[in-house]
Amino acid sequence: MTSWTAASLLAEIAEIGRNGDGSYSRFCLRPEEVTLREWFVAKATQIGLTIVTDMNANIWAWWGTPGPDAVLTGSHLDSVPGGGAYDGPLGVVSSLVAVATMRDAGITPSKPLAIVAMADEEGARFGMPCLGSRLAAGKLSKAEAHKLVARDGQSLPDAWRAAGLDPDLIGPNDVLLTASCFIELHVEQGRGLADLGHPVAIATAVRPHGRWRAEFTGQGNHAGTTLICDRHDPVLPVAQTVLAAREAAEREGCVTTVGRINVEPGGTNVIASAATMWLDCRAEASQTVTKVVKDIQQASKTAADKHGCQVVWTRESWTDRTSFELRARMLKILGENTPQLSTGAGHDAATLATTMPTGMLFVRNPTGASHCPAESASDADCEAGVEALQTVLEELVK
Amino acid sequence: MTSWTAASLLAEIAEIGRNGDGSYSRFCLRPEEVTLREWFVAKATQIGLTIVTDMNANIWAWWGTPGPDAVLTGSHLDSVPGGGAYDGPLGVVSSLVAVATMRDAGITPSKPLAIVAMADEEGARFGMPCLGSRLAAGKLSKAEAHKLVARDGQSLPDAWRAAGLDPDLIGPNDVLLTASCFIELHVEQGRGLADLGHPVAIATAVRPHGRWRAEFTGQGNHAGTTLICDRHDPVLPVAQTVLAAREAAEREGCVTTVGRINVEPGGTNVIASAATMWLDCRAEASQTVTKVVKDIQQASKTAADKHGCQVVWTRESWTDRTSFELRARMLKILGENTPQLSTGAGHDAATLATTMPTGMLFVRNPTGASHCPAESASDADCEAGVEALQTVLEELVK
Repeated sequence: MTSWTAASLLAEIAEIGRNGDGSYSRFCLRPEEVTLREWFVAKATQIGLTIVTDMNANIWAWWGTPGPDAVLTGSHLDSVPGGGAYDGPLGVVSSLVAVATMRDAGITPSKPLAIVAMADEEGARFGMPCLGSRLAAGKLSKAEAHKLVARDGQSLPDAWRAAGLDPDLIGPNDVLLTASCFIELHVEQGRGLADLGHPVAIATAVRPHGRWRAEFTGQGNHAGTTLICDRHDPVLPVAQTVLAAREAAEREGCVTTVGRINVEPGGTNVIASAATMWLDCRAEASQTVTKVVKDIQQASKTAADKHGCQVVWTRESWTDRTSFELRARMLKILGENTPQLSTGAGHDAATLATTMPTGMLFVRNPTGASHCPAESASDADCEAGVEALQTVLEELVK
Repeated sequence: MTSWTAASLLAEIAEIGRNGDGSYSRFCLRPEEVTLREWFVAKATQIGLTIVTDMNANIWAWWGTPGPDAVLTGSHLDSVPGGGAYDGPLGVVSSLVAVATMRDAGITPSKPLAIVAMADEEGARFGMPCLGSRLAAGKLSKAEAHKLVARDGQSLPDAWRAAGLDPDLIGPNDVLLTASCFIELHVEQGRGLADLGHPVAIATAVRPHGRWRAEFTGQGNHAGTTLICDRHDPVLPVAQTVLAAREAAEREGCVTTVGRINVEPGGTNVIASAATMWLDCRAEASQTVTKVVKDIQQASKTAADKHGCQVVWTRESWTDRTSFELRARMLKILGENTPQLSTGAGHDAATLATTMPTGMLFVRNPTGASHCPAESASDADCEAGVEALQTVLEELVK
């Protein structure tokens, strides 16, 4: 019998990858995240689960024999830079508590059940959100994966090898492709439940979202001796594009974010030779995203032309509107009055939605803040989340 | 007898700190610049000079006994990120060739002469341009120096200790404070000489210039789930300030540059919690710089307020208009028809101008480009520069 709670397990990992300001930076296969993986393996082993690490860097903790028709649950251990304590880990620890409780209760599943910790869900390390689930579902090929380079400069194959994984074995995972369903619990990333006064919601859909990279090139030169009229400074069209992105979002009623900018070479007294910015765009409808990104790209080209610079846009990822097929069944299991919410955030459960029926549970986040240290969930709400997850899992494994 | 030329010495160091695009990144006391220091010491020793490294990280190569009334020449070995091959090293190698030739010619100076390689002239490592000359001249105190932190995170005292220097001994250098004069040769950082059709010019003055840091803070959050109206995104006021800086420069006829921006935490799907930008501003008159910076700061505050963010400005450095006292004497030595140019670039010779008479020689740069790989000077023009430097030094040491 374990005495685990979601809160007690989160407390065990509270110091891992924690920054000075209380935020977390836990990047896929970097030391902090590797420590979390080792911790997860130890916990899962402690309750009798069998560990399988697939060659897509996902860790599976099995109750029963790995095989077809499996019920999958879990989430991810990695974080964005400066993220919160709950985004990812709450789903993993809730799955551990739910499974431990089910085993203690003597339940005998008629299907194999696995808790999966998915690799680089945030894409903070290799620039590809839901990396592990995309690879396992065959949505991202081995060849594409081999081209990925971490923002720290390490290639994905090198990072794989350093972690004892064979990058040549990356590819679709048969157990995942023949699984019965996947259910992911996650801290809510908005104030929906706080406003409704409920601890737990069922997810309806993930709104369409994508990431784009805009690379501006100009002409590096001396900040003191180059006349304004002789400059080709790529920082100026970046600034204009940042403002164009905000204007487009306000005009079309969606969200755009520029949260990452690199200026090269980055000297105070050097006119930049190049500057790169990343754009995140999400909307209720995919056509809105398409229109907004097109408008922003057009504005960036006009700005680049004005300053004698060039700009090249690359779409880094795209996920269309994704409905959760398990929603109706979960509603029946948990009660028709359970709140239902859509979300603007991407998740492994959305990536896997075309591969198998998937569903999500959201746990109330009083601040509504996410990807920052203010993200939170009360111990009681975390317990309510575990209870809902356990209730659903008990039905799914029948 | 040496057969050195400026070009042959530059060729010896052409691979040190060279980037893939042909540019150079040689940061003070980092391995690349340490290699250059060792090379300089070896070369100076080879022609019989005596090496003294002061505790401000400047290297002195002496012809004669270190003492009062010394004639100083030299420049710096460090570069901006992605700089050119000539900015700094041309002055050092030209000094080596000039002194070697004078020694070979049997000249007997009546004053001690030293070639000085000054530390972190660009300020690319510790954020303080002309660091070594400021410290040696007592213009920056030991206490202020101890607070400096390199952009790679190492504190100045730690960097000093790692280089075998005692940071407690930082301070004014008596030999420098009692020196006769300082003359620095430098590649031109504009197209003045190219337009005039001359290989060498005498510098008249450095226009006033300074560096400011603007730190914007907002509220980190999730890029997908945070409504536009709930955001406090510091990247937006940064963008507006970048554009305000350009507008102010065009309005007032001066130059402003934002060549360095840090967005924290820097995730594609994370609204930034903080963003820092650095402003470089230079004008013919110091009042213009004051007005322009004030206008930009006001615009940044308005923009920060609009987005519910805060901004704090810090002046990192300031150098008022500096005339070179040696100009008239150099003009007499080199001929009244020698071209004369002012510059928007800062130099150790400007920092030291209130400590002793200083002067500069500029060598033609056909591209006019600076702080980038396109910076250049022909072998013949470099020789003309050495010849002019030698002619001036022979007079100064009489």
